[in-house]
Amino acid sequence: MYQSRRIVLAQRPQGRIKLDDFAHDHVALPPLQPGEMLLQTLWISIDPAMRGWLDNRHTYLPPVAIGDPVRALGLARVLESKSPSFTPGQVVRGFVGWQERFVSTDSSAWDLVEESDAAALPTRLGVLGMTGLTAWVGMKEIVDPRPGETIVVSAAAGAVGSVAVQIAKAAGARVVGIAGGAEKCQLLIETLGLDAVVDHRSADWREQLIQATPAGVDANFENVGGLIMEAVIDRLNDHARLALCGLIDGYNLKTRPPGPSNFGLLLTKRVKLQGFIVFDHFGRAKEIERSLSTMMAAGDLQAFDTIVEGFDTLPEVFASSFESRHVGKLLVHVG
Amino acid sequence: MYQSRRIVLAQRPQGRIKLDDFAHDHVALPPLQPGEMLLQTLWISIDPAMRGWLDNRHTYLPPVAIGDPVRALGLARVLESKSPSFTPGQVVRGFVGWQERFVSTDSSAWDLVEESDAAALPTRLGVLGMTGLTAWVGMKEIVDPRPGETIVVSAAAGAVGSVAVQIAKAAGARVVGIAGGAEKCQLLIETLGLDAVVDHRSADWREQLIQATPAGVDANFENVGGLIMEAVIDRLNDHARLALCGLIDGYNLKTRPPGPSNFGLLLTKRVKLQGFIVFDHFGRAKEIERSLSTMMAAGDLQAFDTIVEGFDTLPEVFASSFESRHVGKLLVHVG
Repeated sequence: MYQSRRIVLAQRPQGRIKLDDFAHDHVALPPLQPGEMLLQTLWISIDPAMRGWLDNRHTYLPPVAIGDPVRALGLARVLESKSPSFTPGQVVRGFVGWQERFVSTDSSAWDLVEESDAAALPTRLGVLGMTGLTAWVGMKEIVDPRPGETIVVSAAAGAVGSVAVQIAKAAGARVVGIAGGAEKCQLLIETLGLDAVVDHRSADWREQLIQATPAGVDANFENVGGLIMEAVIDRLNDHARLALCGLIDGYNLKTRPPGPSNFGLLLTKRVKLQGFIVFDHFGRAKEIERSLSTMMAAGDLQAFDTIVEGFDTLPEVFASSFESRHVGKLLVHVG
Repeated sequence: MYQSRRIVLAQRPQGRIKLDDFAHDHVALPPLQPGEMLLQTLWISIDPAMRGWLDNRHTYLPPVAIGDPVRALGLARVLESKSPSFTPGQVVRGFVGWQERFVSTDSSAWDLVEESDAAALPTRLGVLGMTGLTAWVGMKEIVDPRPGETIVVSAAAGAVGSVAVQIAKAAGARVVGIAGGAEKCQLLIETLGLDAVVDHRSADWREQLIQATPAGVDANFENVGGLIMEAVIDRLNDHARLALCGLIDGYNLKTRPPGPSNFGLLLTKRVKLQGFIVFDHFGRAKEIERSLSTMMAAGDLQAFDTIVEGFDTLPEVFASSFESRHVGKLLVHVG
């Protein structure tokens, strides 16, 4: 009989994530019924959107219940299978949650990951996973950058941002990244070839944004919200597009943050704003991942992963992820 | 030599419009040069958007200069013409401004109005003018209502709103109007056949909105902003559309109103928001006015005009227009 350690939601976080919002427990796993699989978690993806899943309101997913493992995407290995869809040894991708082993009752919730190269596995949660898919939908399909246009991406050195800027560069746009700190800004300019950067930790970041966008902003890929989004809205050109991907600035506030004080500019500038959630696009994941693979093979797309070792690190890694010290995709290696 | 009375902008309004923001003057008109026309104003359109044109910032039009006649759309009769485009006696439509007579230096700024029926002239500023065009672009092209969908229109008994609701009804949608006061609500239900109304002057208007939208809201045609827009955003369904036409709630505030406190719902509900300005669509005015005429002829579109007599009434009519006591299109008859 298998056992598993889990990290469950102990209480609803109030504002900023605290370590005692979570609790460790230990469960015995039931024997497999027909159609079920026993899975061993290998990799866990740490995503800002997880913060919203812990609040007590149904948005696009039901809230995580108190006492349940924290919901998280990840990769797992099939240990045993009574499902006709998968065989032991295969690696699958889906909502693993913060648990070392678990029984999956629904095989249809899992994608097979071709394990051609074990070192490439984390990429299947990042550039060639939900992160890349998010960046593709927002940048390629909503922003749709055209050569010469000025495209601004906030959290540009983050998981989604670092992919989004590369997609925009490959399309021939003039790309401006907003990121926090000299190290990230240097990466964006020197490694990713962005046309300009804005360091939002500098006192003069607003001036930097104005300098970086002399012809205004044709589209904004928004990951942050708050004062950064307001400043970009001020710079939007008439008929600009705004892909609303994330609003991380407000995720840890106890009360709803106010909307942008320049909301009226969305009218006078005739802006098209489109909110989107990557889960709506999972049906096209294979096709889009092929496009991203092609970009990687052509040298147009680099993957940036920040990897932390060990199941027990999960609460601290998640809590500290909002301080945005990491670059690219943040992953915990469990297996 | 012709003379004209004018009402000019005396000072930039601070917050609410006051009568001493305007001044009356009297000018002698210069003799016509080749290409020019002398026009006599007949009708002046009173539109909420004019409030924004008086502030000292360039949005989609430059601000009205201090000392210039207030910018306004209207109808005028050609008194004399040295333009090959128009002959004396014809009626034209364009930016007449708050002046009884004036010289137009640019004939291309004017549309010819076929004066088949003098009584129908005001309609060419309302349902078959900029007002109808605004409603058509926002409702038909951005909202694009489908049979059975729930569509909410704020300021539904106003100039644009009263046309927008009729376009949505004709498309087979379930239409909910938000308006202030029992008289307007009665008009919307009894005369226009709306499916439900919300009286935002009632203490329980939020509850009325919830009752009126049991299946949520598939699209919002927004004319107001503020708390009313927030309440509608709370009711939006996933993948809803939001046509951002006007934000009259904030036009008379001294400082920018805050954005909606539930702005984040635009993301989690995957809303498509599109700001629009009717002037972008003037090139298609004739074609769209034909479609609106066809609707009128079929009995699917009624015109509601509130007409005030006399040039001198303009400042007071404009100032009081923000109290929203009138129904439908507000016009001043000058000629």
